[in-house]
Amino acid sequence: MDVPSTALFTDQYELTMLQAALRAGTAERRSVFEVFTRRLPNGRRYGVVAGTGRVLDAVENFRFDPALLGFLRERGVVDEATLRWLAEYRFRGDVWGYPEGEVYFPGSPVMRVEGSFAECVLLETVILSVLNHDSAIAAAASRMSAAAGGRGLIEMGARRTHELAAVAAARAAYVGGFDSTSDLAAGFRYGIPTVGTSAHAFTLLHDTERGAFRAQVDSLGRGTTLLVDTYDVAEAVRTAVDIAGPELGAVRIDSGDLLLVAHRVRRQLDELGAVNTRIVVTSDLDEYAIASLAAAPVDAYGVGTQLVTGSGHPTCSMVYKLVARARSTDPGAPLEPVAKKSRGGKTSIGGRKWAARRPDEQGVAEAEVVGTGAVPDGLADRQLLVQLVKGGEVVAREPLEAARERHLAVRGGLPLSATQLSRGEPVLPTEYL
Amino acid sequence: MDVPSTALFTDQYELTMLQAALRAGTAERRSVFEVFTRRLPNGRRYGVVAGTGRVLDAVENFRFDPALLGFLRERGVVDEATLRWLAEYRFRGDVWGYPEGEVYFPGSPVMRVEGSFAECVLLETVILSVLNHDSAIAAAASRMSAAAGGRGLIEMGARRTHELAAVAAARAAYVGGFDSTSDLAAGFRYGIPTVGTSAHAFTLLHDTERGAFRAQVDSLGRGTTLLVDTYDVAEAVRTAVDIAGPELGAVRIDSGDLLLVAHRVRRQLDELGAVNTRIVVTSDLDEYAIASLAAAPVDAYGVGTQLVTGSGHPTCSMVYKLVARARSTDPGAPLEPVAKKSRGGKTSIGGRKWAARRPDEQGVAEAEVVGTGAVPDGLADRQLLVQLVKGGEVVAREPLEAARERHLAVRGGLPLSATQLSRGEPVLPTEYL
Repeated sequence: MDVPSTALFTDQYELTMLQAALRAGTAERRSVFEVFTRRLPNGRRYGVVAGTGRVLDAVENFRFDPALLGFLRERGVVDEATLRWLAEYRFRGDVWGYPEGEVYFPGSPVMRVEGSFAECVLLETVILSVLNHDSAIAAAASRMSAAAGGRGLIEMGARRTHELAAVAAARAAYVGGFDSTSDLAAGFRYGIPTVGTSAHAFTLLHDTERGAFRAQVDSLGRGTTLLVDTYDVAEAVRTAVDIAGPELGAVRIDSGDLLLVAHRVRRQLDELGAVNTRIVVTSDLDEYAIASLAAAPVDAYGVGTQLVTGSGHPTCSMVYKLVARARSTDPGAPLEPVAKKSRGGKTSIGGRKWAARRPDEQGVAEAEVVGTGAVPDGLADRQLLVQLVKGGEVVAREPLEAARERHLAVRGGLPLSATQLSRGEPVLPTEYL
Repeated sequence: MDVPSTALFTDQYELTMLQAALRAGTAERRSVFEVFTRRLPNGRRYGVVAGTGRVLDAVENFRFDPALLGFLRERGVVDEATLRWLAEYRFRGDVWGYPEGEVYFPGSPVMRVEGSFAECVLLETVILSVLNHDSAIAAAASRMSAAAGGRGLIEMGARRTHELAAVAAARAAYVGGFDSTSDLAAGFRYGIPTVGTSAHAFTLLHDTERGAFRAQVDSLGRGTTLLVDTYDVAEAVRTAVDIAGPELGAVRIDSGDLLLVAHRVRRQLDELGAVNTRIVVTSDLDEYAIASLAAAPVDAYGVGTQLVTGSGHPTCSMVYKLVARARSTDPGAPLEPVAKKSRGGKTSIGGRKWAARRPDEQGVAEAEVVGTGAVPDGLADRQLLVQLVKGGEVVAREPLEAARERHLAVRGGLPLSATQLSRGEPVLPTEYL
């Protein structure tokens, strides 16, 4: 679980472009790259920035050790001059970005990386990998947490995605409003609260369901969560309370019509005196299923597949584009805006950008304002980008809790339609100044 | 890029079930777990087993070191007796499975893990993470490679998924028929051929497109791939051949109507005498876009987002279920089939299974046959499960190339409708004996 060097999480062309620029004498031109997306996933009202803390780790650990350099030499990826340059590589530039947990919209300059072309171009892939993955998960998590309306949300998707993507997904889900995870690696690496219930295998291992429940309660205590849908739910609930008494912590239902079954189980638990026993539901939940259970006596939702796959949108379409560069390596050379201009539709806006969120008279956000040049007076204290790395040093590390709280606060300041689950346009328009 | 311990890629309930079973005296009951899926993703004709080699790595590296044990103690996840048991943990059982690259269908016992309940239950999450992720990518890759019909396929999706999921995705894509990857970490870790082109940033860095092309060709040689859609494609192609001559390796087109533009660029290249210069296209390709370019003069496809997100199906729904167990810890106690039986629809078939693929008279596969008990004579030499781990030792390591070749051979033995891109039923029915 150590963080290895992140230097090979890189597309080969970044290194060959570096080689060509070194030879051409353009590698040290001062440059500004920006991360942004041209659109939100179809129907989504807002995006959620997540992974910022992991980007900072990745930038710090972006070093070419002898094993990596040996690989590049053996494969002939780049020449010796470039290998010598890579051996000394440390990012010494600046990074600004939307703080983790912030929301974003089409065109929002979510992150800005400044330094020489050479030092910035190398970070493209790893920065995009982290932000595109983590922000996709956080956006789904945020919709689910809005739908859950304060009920518990447990991340249980590790088995549905790559084992390390799962750890990042648990982290992003927490930023988006989840309360805990079943993934022990996420608890170990990021301190996220971990929880567990029980599987059908445990019941099936034992000769009877009663034997299984007895074994679980004997070992884990009455506060445990018993899984009650291996055979007959009503019988299982009776057995569970018979064994654990009214102090039984919770029961989990993993199949069937959850709305109906939850009502029946609640009634049964109450009749048996287990009025404080909680009901946890799982089984391919997404934000719509969660919302549809709002009227059911459910205490917590365990969410797996749909969370770690971004509920239909497993990635964001963030790109990393050169938006300005000096025309010489002279330290005083001014930055000039640059942008792709072909007719393919993938144009972007050149220039180093600022961004601010403009509130209406009630203090509710009404527009994402993005511009180049001077920031208008009224928006100066509404700016969204904060400095994350200064001269190669990380200056904005924060506990994950801070990102989670920020997200819930920022989401609360959006127009009410932000948390509507139905498809629609971004809840804020982006205005370019 | 070391493989760390995989022991925490585990859902908490696996450890608490272990604790309860240890205390109840049931932990050492001989058990059989199977990995299978109840359905293919909607419309898909076949699944592709991928990740098997990574599962073997994960099982070998599943060890609880003092740091992990300290974490579990501090969090109070399990008791001291369980921690002592975990400290000694090594998987000593057997694993059988479909070899990597094989295809599978609903109900196929893709993997079977046998040993004590305790040693097998711990592997659930990590095995499912690997197989569910990697098989989803390989299935998409296989469809794309069928659609590409022998033209080159470059995996370029690292920036669209978690940085380590990307490495596994490049691996799975290779199994599914891709030829190379842009991801250096995948080259380093798995020996997959790596390739690169150039980005718009490189052109924009330079004062002119001509200056950028000159810098690239001077450094990387005439065989390089020039990106020709930053400004005007026709002008860029003219400049490219002017600088590199007819030996120019390739041009890349990343936007616009690829069908139209590829035809125009091919004609222009030919007129300029660059008849061997290849055309690489990129830009949100999926298997349908690839197929639609079959009549275009395209030499290679670079595929990103849609590959690493499984082209609409970023995960499989494989589950890991206890299908048989002894009723005592007596070494001679017989295995008894077990299965969940509630009315929720998630029932499964108990018993330790074999699987075979039955060919028709022409030798084309006609059914996936799954059974418990004795294998019928005619199917004995058609069995699909091979032993992967024996008494805790990995016995079936193989080069990635072998899995790739197996996949292409096996796919070629399916009915022709297997590689139709349109939605449909699984191309083979699953028969239970």
